[in-house]
Amino acid sequence: MVVVMQERATDEQVQQVIAQLTQMGFDVHRSTGALRTVLGAVGGNRQFDTRLLEVFEGVQEVVRITEPYKLAGRTFKPENTVVSVGDVRIGGDEVIVMAGPCSAESEEQVEASAAAVRRAGAKVLRGGAFKPRSSPYSFQGMGEEGLRLLKSAADRHNLKLVSEVMDLSQIELISKYADILQVGARNMQNFTLLRELGRSRTPILLKRGISATIEEWLLSAEYILAGGNMNVVLCERGIRTFESYTRNTLDISAIPVIHKLSHLPIVADPSHGSGRRDMVPSMARAAVAAGADGLIIEVHTDPDHALSDGAQSLYPNQFDGLMAELRIIAPAIGRAICLEPVTRRGWGV
Amino acid sequence: MVVVMQERATDEQVQQVIAQLTQMGFDVHRSTGALRTVLGAVGGNRQFDTRLLEVFEGVQEVVRITEPYKLAGRTFKPENTVVSVGDVRIGGDEVIVMAGPCSAESEEQVEASAAAVRRAGAKVLRGGAFKPRSSPYSFQGMGEEGLRLLKSAADRHNLKLVSEVMDLSQIELISKYADILQVGARNMQNFTLLRELGRSRTPILLKRGISATIEEWLLSAEYILAGGNMNVVLCERGIRTFESYTRNTLDISAIPVIHKLSHLPIVADPSHGSGRRDMVPSMARAAVAAGADGLIIEVHTDPDHALSDGAQSLYPNQFDGLMAELRIIAPAIGRAICLEPVTRRGWGV
Amino acid sequence: MVVVMQERATDEQVQQVIAQLTQMGFDVHRSTGALRTVLGAVGGNRQFDTRLLEVFEGVQEVVRITEPYKLAGRTFKPENTVVSVGDVRIGGDEVIVMAGPCSAESEEQVEASAAAVRRAGAKVLRGGAFKPRSSPYSFQGMGEEGLRLLKSAADRHNLKLVSEVMDLSQIELISKYADILQVGARNMQNFTLLRELGRSRTPILLKRGISATIEEWLLSAEYILAGGNMNVVLCERGIRTFESYTRNTLDISAIPVIHKLSHLPIVADPSHGSGRRDMVPSMARAAVAAGADGLIIEVHTDPDHALSDGAQSLYPNQFDGLMAELRIIAPAIGRAICLEPVTRRGWGV
Amino acid sequence: MVVVMQERATDEQVQQVIAQLTQMGFDVHRSTGALRTVLGAVGGNRQFDTRLLEVFEGVQEVVRITEPYKLAGRTFKPENTVVSVGDVRIGGDEVIVMAGPCSAESEEQVEASAAAVRRAGAKVLRGGAFKPRSSPYSFQGMGEEGLRLLKSAADRHNLKLVSEVMDLSQIELISKYADILQVGARNMQNFTLLRELGRSRTPILLKRGISATIEEWLLSAEYILAGGNMNVVLCERGIRTFESYTRNTLDISAIPVIHKLSHLPIVADPSHGSGRRDMVPSMARAAVAAGADGLIIEVHTDPDHALSDGAQSLYPNQFDGLMAELRIIAPAIGRAICLEPVTRRGWGV
Repeated sequence: MVVVMQERATDEQVQQVIAQLTQMGFDVHRSTGALRTVLGAVGGNRQFDTRLLEVFEGVQEVVRITEPYKLAGRTFKPENTVVSVGDVRIGGDEVIVMAGPCSAESEEQVEASAAAVRRAGAKVLRGGAFKPRSSPYSFQGMGEEGLRLLKSAADRHNLKLVSEVMDLSQIELISKYADILQVGARNMQNFTLLRELGRSRTPILLKRGISATIEEWLLSAEYILAGGNMNVVLCERGIRTFESYTRNTLDISAIPVIHKLSHLPIVADPSHGSGRRDMVPSMARAAVAAGADGLIIEVHTDPDHALSDGAQSLYPNQFDGLMAELRIIAPAIGRAICLEPVTRRGWGV
Repeated sequence: MVVVMQERATDEQVQQVIAQLTQMGFDVHRSTGALRTVLGAVGGNRQFDTRLLEVFEGVQEVVRITEPYKLAGRTFKPENTVVSVGDVRIGGDEVIVMAGPCSAESEEQVEASAAAVRRAGAKVLRGGAFKPRSSPYSFQGMGEEGLRLLKSAADRHNLKLVSEVMDLSQIELISKYADILQVGARNMQNFTLLRELGRSRTPILLKRGISATIEEWLLSAEYILAGGNMNVVLCERGIRTFESYTRNTLDISAIPVIHKLSHLPIVADPSHGSGRRDMVPSMARAAVAAGADGLIIEVHTDPDHALSDGAQSLYPNQFDGLMAELRIIAPAIGRAICLEPVTRRGWGV
Repeated sequence: MVVVMQERATDEQVQQVIAQLTQMGFDVHRSTGALRTVLGAVGGNRQFDTRLLEVFEGVQEVVRITEPYKLAGRTFKPENTVVSVGDVRIGGDEVIVMAGPCSAESEEQVEASAAAVRRAGAKVLRGGAFKPRSSPYSFQGMGEEGLRLLKSAADRHNLKLVSEVMDLSQIELISKYADILQVGARNMQNFTLLRELGRSRTPILLKRGISATIEEWLLSAEYILAGGNMNVVLCERGIRTFESYTRNTLDISAIPVIHKLSHLPIVADPSHGSGRRDMVPSMARAAVAAGADGLIIEVHTDPDHALSDGAQSLYPNQFDGLMAELRIIAPAIGRAICLEPVTRRGWGV
Repeated sequence: MVVVMQERATDEQVQQVIAQLTQMGFDVHRSTGALRTVLGAVGGNRQFDTRLLEVFEGVQEVVRITEPYKLAGRTFKPENTVVSVGDVRIGGDEVIVMAGPCSAESEEQVEASAAAVRRAGAKVLRGGAFKPRSSPYSFQGMGEEGLRLLKSAADRHNLKLVSEVMDLSQIELISKYADILQVGARNMQNFTLLRELGRSRTPILLKRGISATIEEWLLSAEYILAGGNMNVVLCERGIRTFESYTRNTLDISAIPVIHKLSHLPIVADPSHGSGRRDMVPSMARAAVAAGADGLIIEVHTDPDHALSDGAQSLYPNQFDGLMAELRIIAPAIGRAICLEPVTRRGWGV
């Protein structure tokens, strides 16, 4: 930590800050310039609240010189993390596409969606059984029956399954069915939930909160990593800005920033990131071009009658077209999409 | 709902939208102007996702004409709600001040804080026992022992107690001690928790999420109200903006907006709203001048050694000075602060 | 400036940074800790772009330790600046209220507005003659004729006049009529205009841009101060956030922040800051309670037929009521409003 | 326009709104439902301020049903606009890359930059002669001498030239040298300047303000179009959000949104949009993948010693690599980059 004193700070004020730092376990180096004094403090606690010193008399600015997270950072682990879900490797050479309906609605819908996304090249089926809805009057999901349908369809089509867990009471149930547990944007700072997921070994898809800074997002990943679960995949899904034409603003720049700061893989969710079906393909292409390790996309065989998020779900033929475009783009950054020949049917059947 | 068609929309496109609306249970009135067609749709579902129609060909814009919330709105209940906590009435003529430490740390600290805030005129003691911290390495609270200390001090000083509940598993425990259950900003859209709190009859202090719109905030209140718990107090505690000098931007304008849209009382939290002790008095005065029904303020007898939020906690003498200022301001809007003569000691002893 | 190297930075990388800093005129002090190296750099240029070092290999973070502005800061001038406009002193003991119509529309309207605001206690008449409108099809102002009407009414009622200058070509003309030149939010970074206003000695009311940080705002003030014009009054008028219920979010916290960082007076504009007449009184009261040195408020004798900004203009009787409330609030912070007995008529007549 | 009355609105309140609408030249259609009354208003003025009705008693919401811009919209002109700059066509099949230094610094620097960007496939040279700097103490540009150097280098290398005009007094001068006049983000709402540029016939590159909504941006384009200059190219260059790791957040989603709402071409500026050299290639690829009609990129032969924006300028070899990646991506969306064989030297020499 570096404490910059004001130009007019008195020596007494400087001494008070030094005393406080010392008491907190820091080693302090004082550097007195012509205009002002700067104090360097090393050791001490990574989690120190810098504001505690900012409010001291005579202090101009306090600067943290270590990131507040550790396990999630490149300093701790320079090489990329690859999260393996069976034979699906997220963070490796292949861009992994996860797709499927917002929520399970019926056996037919789930089966048709799984077949469609597998045919186009997806490796993971997405689908919710418990839905967090901003209104108490909206459809709240099928519950365990939905999970059963999703798992069964995923198995039939050789897909892994990702599904959202909303509360720690649901972890055990959902883990029985899903290969990846999704933490939604609204739960990104539900620390009770994160801590519990750290005790699991199931891969976690951690969505960024709509107003979370990248640092806060990595701190939330740290909660899971600190518990011993190193299988964390980050998911950018749009931040809230002043622009309201799109539901959220998909922060494409978070992709290269995460690759710089962290070893964890990052995927993008252009469906929630734009909120409108007609914007999804553009944003999906942009995310892959920017270096995303994967995508998670809502696809519905009949979006006009979907019980949730129909407006942002692609029709299967739109998804086919998008996958064809992505196959052109991925090589520009040394990646591939869907390496195996999916047109040859027969997997897992 | 009003659906505005594009100028060049074909009649076929208009018919498709009408068919969709009809199928969804709306009565449709078509109005065809020289330039474009506008469809009015009444009946149907309050929770309808307008984007489902926005993605239809030929549609320019879809406008909801009813608020998505009902019980929280002035239309449903025109007169102000007063939430009674024993003899403390939030939303009435008196501006209610809640104050105390961020978290319980020791018996001495809790006792001294309670005595100090009561002396200055506070009616409710604030204090946390389970702390949601953005880092897994920070102090996480004293747990039930903290609650016991807080309740005991509150009783000794004739104060009510407000404390945060972070997860539905904590509701039962915290309800044994606290008179008001606080839902933190990060949990504003933890719908599992909100639904459960709707089954309680304990007053709820519902903080606004740092990136929640006022409409989303009222929808979260609706979750609690819809369960039958009408004792909801809203709390503005700062939103996230581009400005980073202050930790958050306390949205003072939310106070008159809530008073216009809703019958629920609203209090302000200038401590979290500014994040710096030296900004708290200004923002507290502003909130009362703007019409807040109360304040919740962090006060610590030794903020430099607080285990959390020390930088935004007032010293007791600062709090005394602030209360004196507020007593001048409140009459400007026909309110009072701390009606009973607290200088005469002896209450509850 | 402090340059924090990454934990894994090589000595060669450190040397390259030192070489660069030296070449740029800084004196460098190297401090090598157990984990990482920190470089302190003093001297050099206040305006140095820290990003130039951030992109060096091995650099983790670069921290500026001097504010980028100088003349606008408290370090340069610790005592408050009082801007005198004739006998009106902005930044002194009195809270100065500026009020009047958005724009001059007719002789009758200007006269009636001036009379109304003077009667209620305003000291400065506001009114525009050249209007910056976001649409090319909107009313663009009366031009010089409007200035003439405003000045004449101001003189008749013993008011000073503040009016907006949109372009440097207008400075000469508007200076002939106005006592204070207003720089609008959209022009806060029109540096050509600011530089020219620095050559003037007329007081400047510098509005904050809707997305300007406080630091950028003070840098814009610096442009004017650096030219020798020390008569700068800052004006907070709302920032753009995700919340869209109000047109902008009046950043009340900017008031105490400016008072801490700068010696310049600051006034608030609750009319543009909220955009709705029904929110103006609450926000005006809040600004004064937070310590604003003044207010600038739109008042119109017939707002329903105003040619611009009618929706945010107060009726004269609302303005009267607001002034009465402000007179109660101001003493809470040791200020007064409208010291002279305005009920006794006769000034300037 | 649609005016939605409150559920409890009285008939008298409805009549007042109808009277007001009628007086303003609208035809009003009243639709009275079981719960509330909705008024449809057609005709009248496109620029009507909806807030004027929002503040009427009994009004819940007012909805504009026509965009406030006309000439910039797809309704007015459904087919794409191609802006021709000599033989360079912006908005056609080819993605046009504009590149060069932030500002002209010397003859050698300009010549070397022009040669480098031409060799890699750029069609337009970018470079500033008058720099808008947020600090009065920063380098302010070479002025006309810089323009002369830029034009000369552009001619030698068969490049068009784009350069920024900061004030209407500069239009004549800069038009003598530049083929495209750039309006910077800070000037997006400098209406005096926009109006004057509408009288020109030189193509305009109109950057989006950092806090401008897409609607406001199109309204600024409307100022130019309304003057008769139809050669407007939009440029997304990053918006201000709460995230501060990158200087701005490049709003990639603005690209498909603009293509939907407007016929005007749109290019992206990943240099200002990210503010850091190491993020530029990712964001440039993303923009092309999302459908941008072009890019404008800062390239400097010696960025470490650039007088401005060095941190966000690419080295020439980085630019070469980026162009190679873009040539792979463009076909995914049916576009090409740099159609002519630039490896064959000899143009313009």
